[in-house]
Parts: sequence; C-alpha cells; structure tokens
Amino acid sequence: MQQNKIQSEIQSIVATQSQYIAQHHDRFLAEVCDLIRIPSVSTDKSYANEVHRAAEFIKNQLITAGADNVEVCQTAGYPIVYGEKLINPALPTVLVYGHYDVQPADPLELWTSPPFEPRIADGYIYARGACDDKGQMYMHIKAFELMMKTNSLACNVKFMIEGEEEIGSVNLGAFCTANREKLKADVILISDTGMIANDIPSITAGLRGLSYMEVEITSPNRDLHSGLYGGAVANPINILCQMIASLHDENNHITVKGFYDKVAELSAAERAEMAKAPFDLAQYKAALDLPDVHGEKGYSTLERTSIRPTLDVNGIWGGYAGQGAKTVIPSKAYAKISMRLVPHQVSEEITELFTKHFESIAPPSVRVKVTALHGGEPVVTPTDSVAYKAAELAYETTFGKKPIPQRGGGSIPIVAMFKAALNIDSVLMGFGLDSDAIHSPNERFGLFNFRRGIETIPLFYQYFASLKK
Amino acid sequence: MQQNKIQSEIQSIVATQSQYIAQHHDRFLAEVCDLIRIPSVSTDKSYANEVHRAAEFIKNQLITAGADNVEVCQTAGYPIVYGEKLINPALPTVLVYGHYDVQPADPLELWTSPPFEPRIADGYIYARGACDDKGQMYMHIKAFELMMKTNSLACNVKFMIEGEEEIGSVNLGAFCTANREKLKADVILISDTGMIANDIPSITAGLRGLSYMEVEITSPNRDLHSGLYGGAVANPINILCQMIASLHDENNHITVKGFYDKVAELSAAERAEMAKAPFDLAQYKAALDLPDVHGEKGYSTLERTSIRPTLDVNGIWGGYAGQGAKTVIPSKAYAKISMRLVPHQVSEEITELFTKHFESIAPPSVRVKVTALHGGEPVVTPTDSVAYKAAELAYETTFGKKPIPQRGGGSIPIVAMFKAALNIDSVLMGFGLDSDAIHSPNERFGLFNFRRGIETIPLFYQYFASLKK
Repeated sequence: MQQNKIQSEIQSIVATQSQYIAQHHDRFLAEVCDLIRIPSVSTDKSYANEVHRAAEFIKNQLITAGADNVEVCQTAGYPIVYGEKLINPALPTVLVYGHYDVQPADPLELWTSPPFEPRIADGYIYARGACDDKGQMYMHIKAFELMMKTNSLACNVKFMIEGEEEIGSVNLGAFCTANREKLKADVILISDTGMIANDIPSITAGLRGLSYMEVEITSPNRDLHSGLYGGAVANPINILCQMIASLHDENNHITVKGFYDKVAELSAAERAEMAKAPFDLAQYKAALDLPDVHGEKGYSTLERTSIRPTLDVNGIWGGYAGQGAKTVIPSKAYAKISMRLVPHQVSEEITELFTKHFESIAPPSVRVKVTALHGGEPVVTPTDSVAYKAAELAYETTFGKKPIPQRGGGSIPIVAMFKAALNIDSVLMGFGLDSDAIHSPNERFGLFNFRRGIETIPLFYQYFASLKK
Repeated sequence: MQQNKIQSEIQSIVATQSQYIAQHHDRFLAEVCDLIRIPSVSTDKSYANEVHRAAEFIKNQLITAGADNVEVCQTAGYPIVYGEKLINPALPTVLVYGHYDVQPADPLELWTSPPFEPRIADGYIYARGACDDKGQMYMHIKAFELMMKTNSLACNVKFMIEGEEEIGSVNLGAFCTANREKLKADVILISDTGMIANDIPSITAGLRGLSYMEVEITSPNRDLHSGLYGGAVANPINILCQMIASLHDENNHITVKGFYDKVAELSAAERAEMAKAPFDLAQYKAALDLPDVHGEKGYSTLERTSIRPTLDVNGIWGGYAGQGAKTVIPSKAYAKISMRLVPHQVSEEITELFTKHFESIAPPSVRVKVTALHGGEPVVTPTDSVAYKAAELAYETTFGKKPIPQRGGGSIPIVAMFKAALNIDSVLMGFGLDSDAIHSPNERFGLFNFRRGIETIPLFYQYFASLKK
C-alpha cells in the first residue's frame, strides 16, 4: 500500500472514529466508573470477592464489545479473562494485556473523596485504579468496540486481562506457558505506563525490574518496659533502623554486596542523548514540595529514576504508634524493602544477595527473617521494530508530535516474562502521567488521556496491519 | 519504746492482720478485679469516660475503707482522688501516692486473654494494670481498711491517687503546689516499682528520668510510586532510619551532642557494690529468649538498666504495613523516641538537646518536626532516712530477709517533683517483678505479691511511728 493511500485511509478512519467516540463517550466513562467502583484489591484477601467480581465485569464487557470465546480462566490465584476476535489468519494478531486488580487505597484519610467512588472533577477521574490500570486497560476494550462497530478492525485481536499484577503476576507465567498456541500473536500491546506530558507524548522503551522483600527483626520474646530493660536489650526498631541505614553509603550507593555487578552502564553518548529529554528540576521539586532531590551521587534525576537501580523502604512498623506515649521496647520490628532493578540485574539473584547481606549485617543480639514477596525482571523494549513504528505513527497522528522513546522507572515484570515464555515483544503504549498519583491517595486519570487513548489505539492497529504487509 | 516491746507488739499485730487477711482475701481480690475491668487508658482519649469511672471507683473504695474528706479533685486533665484519716496530730503522717490509669493494651493479638478481663491462673492475676499500678495501689487501700478494722492504724494517712501517670502526670505538679498544706506529710509512700525476686526483696532507691519525643519526617507532599520516583526523591523512611541509626555510635554511646555532660558517674567502689547484687545473665537471656544482650560498651547489664541513660525507639511507622506488597514511597515517616535519664541530667535540657541535634542531622532533602511528649526527672532516694529504715524492717518482717536497696531503670517522674514541690522524700515500696510484663501483653501480678504487699504496708506504719518517736 502506498504511503498516500494509507494516509487518506487513516484520515477517513479518524473521522469515523471521532464521530463514534463523540456519540458514545459518556457511556464509556460511565462504564469505566462502574469498573472502578469494584474494590478489586488483590494484595488483601478480604477483597477476594471483589477481585472476582471485577473479572466477571471484564468478561461481560468483552462479550458486549463483540469478542468471541470469552472465558474467565481459573488459575491458582485470581483468574485471567481471555477473549478474542480472529477475523483473518492473513492479518497480524495483537495480544492486549492489562490488569483489573488495583493497589490498596490506604492511607484512606488522605483521599479527598472515597477511593472507590469515582469523582469526576477538573477534567479527571479521581479513584483508585482510575489510571492503574482500569482506566488504561478499559481504553482497549472501548477501542475494540469502536473498531467492531465502525467495521475498521485491521488486525486479529486477543485479550488477556489478569487480576494479580499488583501482587507480582504470580500465576501469569504458568498460564502463558500452558497456552502458548492460544496466545500466539505478533505483538503484545500494553497500556500500563505513562507519558512525559500531554504535550510531550512518549513511549516507554525500558522498565526497571523489582525485588520486594519483607524483613522481621526479633529481639526479646515479648514487649518490654523500656525503663526496666532499656539499655540492656537490643531494641529491634533501633537495630532495624541501623541495618536499613547501612544499606546505603554516604554517596547513596547501595551497599548490598554484589548488587551492582551486572548493572548495564550506559555510554557517555547514551547518557548525553537521555539528557536531551525535557526536564525542569525546579518544577519537579515544586510539584512534590521537595526541599531538595536526593539520590545516587553522579547521576541526574532522570537517570536515577530510569537507568539506575534503587533500594527503598516501602513500609516500616513496630512498637507503639497510637496517641501519646508508651514506653515499650517491642519484641519485633518489620519493614518492607524493595529494589528497582535495571538491565542486566536478575531479580532472583538480587533477592538472594539482599537476603544474605541483610542476614550478615544483623548483630548477634537479634534474630532476622527475610521473606521475598515478589519480583520481576528489568526489560528494554526494541525501538526499531514494526510494532514500535506503528505506535509511533499512531501517537503522531493523534498528538501531532512524534513521541519520545523513554526509559521508565517502574516495573512491569510481565514484559520480560512474555518475551521468555511466548517470545513476543511488547509495545508499551501508556497514556498516564506521573501526576496521576498511581499507588497514592487521590489517584486520577485525565479525561483527555482516556479519550486520546481510545483514539490512538485503533490507529496502532491500522498502521501495524499496513506496515506488516 | 524498747526494742523488745516493739517486737512483741509487732508479733501481735502480725497475728491479728493475718487473720483479717485470711478472712477477707477473696473479697480483696474480687474488688481489685472490678477495678482492673475498667479500661482507664489515659493516653487514648476514646477511653476518657472509663478513666473517670476508675476515679469514682477509687473514691467509693476509700470511703468504704474508712477515709474522711474523700473527694474527686478536678484538674485540667483527669482528676486526682484525695482522702485522709487524721487520727492524732502527734503521730507522723504518711501520704500514699498511686495511679488508677493504665497503659494501652495493644498489641491486642498477643494477649492470651482479654486485657481488661482479669484472669486468675497459676497464682497470678493477668490483666492490663494488674501490677502497674492498680494491683499495687489497691494494696494500700486494703492495708488501710485492715488497719482501720483491726484498730491498728499507727500514723495519720492521706491518699492522693491520680489518673495521668502514664501520660506524664501533667497536672499533678500544679495540684501539689496548690495544696501544699493539705498534702503535708512526713513521707510519701509509693508502690509502683518492683523487687529483684520474691525471695530477694529489694527497695528501689533511685529511678531514671525520661524525655519522650515524637519525630516526623516529611519528604514529598504525597505518597509516590516507588518505580516512578524511586532513587530521585528522599524516602522519609530511609532517612528516618539513617537519622535514628546515627543516634548511637559503634560502642552504643548516644551521639546527641551534650547528652552525657551532666551524667553522674559512679565511683569504682559504688560500681563494685552494685556488682554484688544477685544477677544471672544466662537466666536473664533465657527468660527473654535473647540471643545476646546489647548495650553500652563498658557497662554491665545491671548498670545499663539503672545508672546509665538510654535512647530507645518505642514506635515507628510509615508507608504500607498491610498484607503483601505496595510499591510506595510515603510522604511521611514517624517515630516515638524516648531517653531514660540518670542523675543529674535534666529532662527539659535533654529534650532541647535532642531536638536541636535531631534537626541538625536531617539532610536538606526532608523536613523534620520534633514534638516533646513528656518528661520527668531522675531521682536518688535516701537510704539513711527513718522512712527507708521503717520500710526495710517491714520487708524483713514479712519476707524474713533484709531487702536490698536497688537503683531502678524505670521512671516515676513524680518522685523528683514531690521533693521539689512539697519537700517530702518518697519511699518506693514496690512488690512487682520484672516478669510481670508491665506495659506489655499479658501483664500480671502475683497473688503472693498482692497479699505480701497488704501484709507489709501496715508494718511500715508501725515501724515508722515507732522510729519517729
């Protein structure tokens, strides 16, 4: 097909789609709000029924949108919803991945409105899951409906929507391995990342991996009175703080032995290229009300959040946290500690290095227990593939600007797993923003972004089918 | 009075008392259990009604026991229950101090039975407040009843039972200053400490002071996703851990600038004397299931818990503490930090030194807030006074052994305050044990100790009256 012909076809498709979206946008929004209202918190077992309810919701929406063979596939944990529309074996196949589970909403007291009661204000949907990933995932179901209803579906399509992304996609690998034939596709399309800004579209071309641990320090066998025992007994909180503090040196390098051994260092040229990305430090600090940024010596803020590994305490608790004073030395103290990994670190190896190191730095006066919660591999996605090119053209058509390839700081461990288990590359067409506060109180998703996603996704199908010819 | 005559009088009193206690012991126990059932947690405002109910209970018990002019004296906080029996201005006057408020019961899940439902088993009362201080304070009311009913009250007596001991006795100082005349006495008698063991009676002759602080570290203005921001933004938990870790050096000396400036160092002879106190390190470690003890270099365990100041984190919290994983960088992290003080440290000065120091060690990437919660002065009580001698004789009579003077590790800040405000020395006739787990789950008080207290207290009155003649 000639470039001109493609362009004129695209123009006509854009027009048809615009009309369909204008007509149905309010319903799209109402539907995604219905999905958001289901508090499908996968990490907390008390929400188990809700997680299952979200799977049923997705199943019904896929059927309504026109998918065939829709099923709620049971796993050892939460189910994976599958559906497909195979229109022509000669056409390329797109496998859409997303997740219907969400992070916990706490701290609840910091939400302006209830986290599972979507509030639409100032051009945003405010709710847990609004962006991550219900809002972004649902764009794909609506884009599919649109292509079906406007007779513009240009590729075969398969959906695989899971309910355990926020707890490490623990059963997805086995599902992929067991269903290699069924999941066969030319590309995996995922919207679970962000862009630099609404006027600076970008496509994520790399992600960090993750090792997430829980540690427990035990000293006396019961809580003690700090007056009677203070000074003579190891206080597990003090010890835990000392151990955590020692995990970084004075340059904010991580001290876990062997931690950096496999880290892929970027060349000066690559770093210079990265430095060209638009970034305003003053604005960054102001948006978060930071007195100053803080990180590994020798690297810029953008580098610290993308090409460098990290170690963060995500939670800590022990002793008395109520009102007023309680003079106690607790028996135990706990922390959740996670490390973001970069190519070519291996999650399982880092988990082992951390465990050994953490055990080795405990003083003889305490007992230490380290539990691995979950992990995922870092990944770099190709930017020279047909799929990437198709995504680039799709963004350029709707945003009017060529998107920038961007290394993301977050982790979508399944991208590396898909490559290993299915040998399919992913394209990360994210439409979120950093300011969407995913995993935080008052998570939101722009109505602009929701709509722009539904507009851009069908164009990817068009370009991908054209370029594959 | 001749020594012989005293001894024979004491013998006869002991016999009369024994009979009375045998007859009424079950009722004494039932009454103290009724008191314990009132969850008078002073630090948590949601228990305010219960704290007031405990005050009413004490008032009624004092009236029933035979006290005059009983009143619930209002303060800016919880009331102080006062009562008296003035039988003869020529006799010495004993002022009994105790408290009817208790520590919070959490962590609730570690209690074998509900904390405010006293359980009697294996010779103990298990409940919050069983020892600290309801059980010990109530011994005085029952000893008073006994002396009234057996016509053996040998001194005038005044009761001052407060409801804010666990939150720093914030209104007691003002009450004392305003009621100097009313509270006039020759000695203040307090049972809110322990003995070395049931077969090694001891009298507390010194107590540590306290400075109790809450600290808050703020970094970003909202919780952040650790993937998107990790590595570039100060994580308030990591920073808090680093700051706390730096409060001790490698010898477990406290690094707060000026902290040791006023610490009274004991002479080699005094330390040698202390080292004679019976202490079994292996047993100590076994009782608490400690892999090892842990404390300031150069000092023994007994010294670390008595003559040396300490710094302990009593609580820490921040980020996610629920099930599973949440990849968050929290906006804030908190800790409760207390320091036990020794003569001649001054609580207010230490509070100021800590605040300055803690603010000074914060990196520029965070904001720090330090709040003083409460404090109290360290104290050494005289062991050469008539009152101490009377206590010594009383213990010797009931335990058959001369009690050892002991420096306690805990704090009863009001002992120093009483000296300053009323110019009265205190005698600390404690009957608890370290194993009573005060401030911990499964707090208990031995039935043996409860009874031995009720037996010993009237003998103190006898000896004190005799020696004062």
